[in-house]
Amino acid sequence: MRDDSPNSWEARADAHSFYGFTDLPSIEQRGAVVLTHGEGPYVFDVHGQKYLDANSGLWNMVAGFDHAGLAAAAKAQYDRFPGYHAFFGRMSDQTVMLSEKLIAVSPFSRGKVFYTNSGSEANDTLVKMLWFLGGAQGKPERRKILTRKNGYHGVTAVSASMTGKPYNSVFGLPLDGFIHLTCPHYWREGLPGESEAAFTARMGAELEEVIAREGADTIAGFVAEPVMGAGGVIPPSEGYFQTIAPILKKHGIPLIADEVICGFGRCGTDWGCQAYDFLPDAIISSKNLTAGYFPMGAVILGPELTDRLQAASDAIEEFPHGFTASGHPVGCAVALKAIEVILEGSDGAAPLIDNVRALTPQFEAGLARLAEHPHIGEARGKGLMGALEAVKDKATKTPFDGALSVSERIANTCTDHGLICRPLGQAVVLCPAFVMTPAQMDEMFEKLEAALKQVFAEVA
Amino acid sequence: MRDDSPNSWEARADAHSFYGFTDLPSIEQRGAVVLTHGEGPYVFDVHGQKYLDANSGLWNMVAGFDHAGLAAAAKAQYDRFPGYHAFFGRMSDQTVMLSEKLIAVSPFSRGKVFYTNSGSEANDTLVKMLWFLGGAQGKPERRKILTRKNGYHGVTAVSASMTGKPYNSVFGLPLDGFIHLTCPHYWREGLPGESEAAFTARMGAELEEVIAREGADTIAGFVAEPVMGAGGVIPPSEGYFQTIAPILKKHGIPLIADEVICGFGRCGTDWGCQAYDFLPDAIISSKNLTAGYFPMGAVILGPELTDRLQAASDAIEEFPHGFTASGHPVGCAVALKAIEVILEGSDGAAPLIDNVRALTPQFEAGLARLAEHPHIGEARGKGLMGALEAVKDKATKTPFDGALSVSERIANTCTDHGLICRPLGQAVVLCPAFVMTPAQMDEMFEKLEAALKQVFAEVA
Repeated sequence: MRDDSPNSWEARADAHSFYGFTDLPSIEQRGAVVLTHGEGPYVFDVHGQKYLDANSGLWNMVAGFDHAGLAAAAKAQYDRFPGYHAFFGRMSDQTVMLSEKLIAVSPFSRGKVFYTNSGSEANDTLVKMLWFLGGAQGKPERRKILTRKNGYHGVTAVSASMTGKPYNSVFGLPLDGFIHLTCPHYWREGLPGESEAAFTARMGAELEEVIAREGADTIAGFVAEPVMGAGGVIPPSEGYFQTIAPILKKHGIPLIADEVICGFGRCGTDWGCQAYDFLPDAIISSKNLTAGYFPMGAVILGPELTDRLQAASDAIEEFPHGFTASGHPVGCAVALKAIEVILEGSDGAAPLIDNVRALTPQFEAGLARLAEHPHIGEARGKGLMGALEAVKDKATKTPFDGALSVSERIANTCTDHGLICRPLGQAVVLCPAFVMTPAQMDEMFEKLEAALKQVFAEVA
Repeated sequence: MRDDSPNSWEARADAHSFYGFTDLPSIEQRGAVVLTHGEGPYVFDVHGQKYLDANSGLWNMVAGFDHAGLAAAAKAQYDRFPGYHAFFGRMSDQTVMLSEKLIAVSPFSRGKVFYTNSGSEANDTLVKMLWFLGGAQGKPERRKILTRKNGYHGVTAVSASMTGKPYNSVFGLPLDGFIHLTCPHYWREGLPGESEAAFTARMGAELEEVIAREGADTIAGFVAEPVMGAGGVIPPSEGYFQTIAPILKKHGIPLIADEVICGFGRCGTDWGCQAYDFLPDAIISSKNLTAGYFPMGAVILGPELTDRLQAASDAIEEFPHGFTASGHPVGCAVALKAIEVILEGSDGAAPLIDNVRALTPQFEAGLARLAEHPHIGEARGKGLMGALEAVKDKATKTPFDGALSVSERIANTCTDHGLICRPLGQAVVLCPAFVMTPAQMDEMFEKLEAALKQVFAEVA
């Protein structure tokens, strides 16, 4: 509970922080949680309270909060070259090496990389690239962007317009020309009696209809997370990408995989698109790219988009876009190390992705067990990302009254018991760090189960 | 000149980098400059070539490329807590401390801070905040943003729409509702026989006209750099802010200072608005905020916007916006140190802003001397930011033929002689690091003068 003395950390946080993505009634009642340090998947607050962070920070601190190898990589680069940009044909050696590495570990045979500081900036940059291509090809009307409801692509005005969440209406978003298709969530969106195959076919038919209605020549691209993350961990229905990819290809519309969350191992594969067996035209990366140790995003362009964008840029002698810290040498050194740690193994340790694969059965079993509860409507996930959807009535899938704030109550109760998990709609999301041990995963599920029982007893 | 062997750094950079803000014919001819390390204001490339970077990286590496105190602050935080977010009412202790510090060093009596990863994201966030306010007050049509031609505010689709540069047309930008007023550059925009006072009055009259034409209730805010940076270092005409601020206030339009470049000492004052004696409603900060040692931006809200935005957020129980790495603990620790280094003095050294003030007369004298050249039309600047405008004809202010690429030639010639400076339009921009010595400043002007003579002899 909050310490309300005048100079408490809670009071200091309130005084000068404009909180984002924060339930303000919870803050009012409980105060900010101010953190000082971490150990593996645990974090510690100013009062000495220890929390198991089942959220991996924000999906991203997959190597834990005290990874010696990542810290060493950052520190060595601070001693060597602590900052530069990538404008004017100048860049650091780390930046050159990271681009090489990213293309090598990408699903592309060749390609080029453009750096940003976040996934939001990477999606925003991608949209500018697609608009640039349209103009360069004499089709300036080719500007519409297709995404899905519940898709999350960031918070700049344009990436928030891609994001398919109703809360963006408070900003007067989405901007015109951002079209949100149906969320391919069979459990929630399937019609009575509709098979999963029929549902997927309906998703394809909707895409065809939207393209016909809008005109293929007005659509710049289709952007999708392999598994929707901040929409509530929603894997696509069976065969979804196999259905939509050929439709997009037929109409000449690039398919972009937003791999900000899925990329680098979250689904148990290097990339989420590999978990669902499709090859996009470009990849948006961030988060695990540096394991959260540095702000970085990247647009990784596959062969065709590379060639088309390079030709369009050559024609005007410049691609007039870039962020001051794009390709920051420390960020690139950290990312080089993070890729090694996650995908290749580092300093004698096995690659963390091996642990993702090893832990997945335990994770799935834990979710399945909690899904037996009468107020859990669905357990879903892929690899080490999962969600439990709370419902008032399991048979009818009826949600709880929104005023009950069920998922916030669950999350706050977990916090009281030393577990951080994330409320999303009426779901509770789990995305544990890749360094978790089986015992820590047991602890996570035990604490979550106790909180679920307590809250459902209160609200049911 | 470029090393074209198959595995050269130049070839590796070309193969995998999608270059931004880069003159592609120069790259084709000369290859990328791949940098390995730095010493004070100097950087070194993979071939051992040493360059005096008169650009401070990208205005931002003001403490030089090997500041031990800043590197130590980053390294200590990597050992302590190497990453967290600021969502859900959780944040690091460093984040709380930095917000406190930023309000303390701001020109505001009180306020709140929202973090981003860049100036682009900070401007984009500000626009979303202003749109949010309009909607919350039942005025959803209050969305137009006023900026100026040559103003530079970033590269996300929205911040690029604020930026008043013609190159953004290749993206089909600006978006609707972004209105660019006349650049208050008296030398270039003043009419024949018009006094500077009359010019400034005309800028005020234009603003009144635009507000009357568009309707004050459709305008969300006015955003201006105290000195335009990437527009070519353009100080406002005399009395400009004193003229426009009351007009904006009369119409209830917030005045936002984009201090990404001017903030933290560049103009010889803590903030650029102090150099021009006006108090904005909010400040956009980045670059010097971390002296380039970490990607970070901030929206620093003054009292009135803090109260209005907090009330609007409380009403919907959340401000639904935030970036994964907003308020990153390492970035906050670095920024705390950078503020100390620049404004307060650190580890026994005087504050760097003292050196800005001490060097300014030498800097101004150097610019003035080069302005005597018949092909330099104007020398301009403030504190340690300056520009020399190349002209074909000084009396008529006629520029050189664009096909001559005069400023690129000057910059490339400088590079050949070990000096990095920035071509912007037909100007050459200088923004030296705050750690420069008088001898290094002499070196900068000597190398630039030699390059100017060589290039003007070629093209004139």
